[in-house]
Amino acid sequence: MDLKVYLKEKRGMVDSFLQSYFESCVSPALLNDAMAYSVFAGGKRVRPILALASYEACGGKAEDIVPFASALEFIHTYSLIHDDLPAMDNDDLRRGKPTNHKVFGEGMAILAGDALLTEAFYLISSALLNGTHIRPRSLLKLIREVAMAAGAQGMVGGQAEDILSEDAAMESDNLSFIHTHKTGALITASVRMGGILANAGRRELSALTRYGENIGHAFQIIDDILDVRGESAELGKSTGSDERKKKMTYPGLYGIDLSMNKAESLVESALDALQCFSEKADPLREIALYILKRRN
Amino acid sequence: MDLKVYLKEKRGMVDSFLQSYFESCVSPALLNDAMAYSVFAGGKRVRPILALASYEACGGKAEDIVPFASALEFIHTYSLIHDDLPAMDNDDLRRGKPTNHKVFGEGMAILAGDALLTEAFYLISSALLNGTHIRPRSLLKLIREVAMAAGAQGMVGGQAEDILSEDAAMESDNLSFIHTHKTGALITASVRMGGILANAGRRELSALTRYGENIGHAFQIIDDILDVRGESAELGKSTGSDERKKKMTYPGLYGIDLSMNKAESLVESALDALQCFSEKADPLREIALYILKRRN
Repeated sequence: MDLKVYLKEKRGMVDSFLQSYFESCVSPALLNDAMAYSVFAGGKRVRPILALASYEACGGKAEDIVPFASALEFIHTYSLIHDDLPAMDNDDLRRGKPTNHKVFGEGMAILAGDALLTEAFYLISSALLNGTHIRPRSLLKLIREVAMAAGAQGMVGGQAEDILSEDAAMESDNLSFIHTHKTGALITASVRMGGILANAGRRELSALTRYGENIGHAFQIIDDILDVRGESAELGKSTGSDERKKKMTYPGLYGIDLSMNKAESLVESALDALQCFSEKADPLREIALYILKRRN
Repeated sequence: MDLKVYLKEKRGMVDSFLQSYFESCVSPALLNDAMAYSVFAGGKRVRPILALASYEACGGKAEDIVPFASALEFIHTYSLIHDDLPAMDNDDLRRGKPTNHKVFGEGMAILAGDALLTEAFYLISSALLNGTHIRPRSLLKLIREVAMAAGAQGMVGGQAEDILSEDAAMESDNLSFIHTHKTGALITASVRMGGILANAGRRELSALTRYGENIGHAFQIIDDILDVRGESAELGKSTGSDERKKKMTYPGLYGIDLSMNKAESLVESALDALQCFSEKADPLREIALYILKRRN
């Protein structure tokens, strides 16, 4: 399989859905603009694509779950908008563009994030009306999964620990907590989404969980490494920002070589977890390998 | 019926649930503290009580839907935390206590709000696991209802319009949009929650909607009037704050007498809407009348 073609195709499905979503504009228009601005600021749609690929691995057709997968992008986008705020990471640039609050002001940026988070749950719960064949019980299980991964027990908890540990002494326990919660939880939930919607059995779901946890962790380590040695132009953000903010990072704690080794062994574990799946899981396998190669 | 006794009893049910919810602390503890601080900052539990009363009006037992009703308080609390932020209304006091960001800092206040919003959906979607007898289909309908009322099409949209119209020329269309969206939508959804969970028929649900819209509107008008002439000590916040912020208000546009007349006629319409209900709807009726009498 050609991963590049696969990613482009799946990203196209998600982008088409998101575009049609923003065709029916909410009021006030500036709120709509602020939401759309960050949703279309160049995201790679990693989480939706993981959900689609995992649904396919379980024998489903990707086009049947695009709205659910797209809801993950709303949640991811909201988290970026809020993380960039002056009271949090205080970033002016994201993917080479001014951050949301730089364009729309802090108040509107907070609201755009709030709205995107809420719309994610609206999207998932609206599926019945839109004639999905997914069972109500599975949709509820999915909402619970996503809410747990996004909330205090997941992403928000990780971000809270992250802002609390700035300027604090680096401890590897803290770093691990931040990684597994701030980015890992939603990535794992994205992978599990495919399994939940396909009514995967316990064994498959637990394999997907292990895959998700491992690639989520690897993804974050590579992110930290790219921040240290990446090219600003390729990343679309200023590099070295973690160090300036005295953020705990893998390379900061263990050095680049050991961090790279760790990422490689995590990807191996992710591939190992997928052994019970057929070649339908090849996109998931290729994505795991790609994490080690990515440059932005 | 004695409304005071009724409100106390129902508030007790909601408070017990909320207290037990915060017994299992999430990490980091400071996030947990920030969430709990505002949830237990003296809220009257208006929205949960409306949901419980409306469920009873449809023949249900209030104790069966306390977790769902309490989710409304999470959403309401999150909206207050975010509204009070410096980038929004910049309020230092709420119900006589320092606002969330004054105690925990802006970053943690934003995250506490994000977490409470997310937990609301977690609560509702977790009900199946906790052995509710409510059908999955009704729970999905409820999640959709709450998300619509809380998000860009409802509360967040109203707040966005509110911050955009500060210092702008007062227009009654704008004021009406802000009222119906910022506070009205969630109050209506709270009343509808009871109907949805009780599988109320179309006629009952539409009556509850009309009741909710009318009391929501009356509630906001009285809120504005109290801000003009209330006692700071009774309200737990500084009065006259709307005028200082040049916020559009009913008394500002129409004067106090006309505003009071409007509130009275809205309450009449609310009572009228309930005609198809038995005496089981008496608490809803008493609550509507109480809105006109409240002093804080």
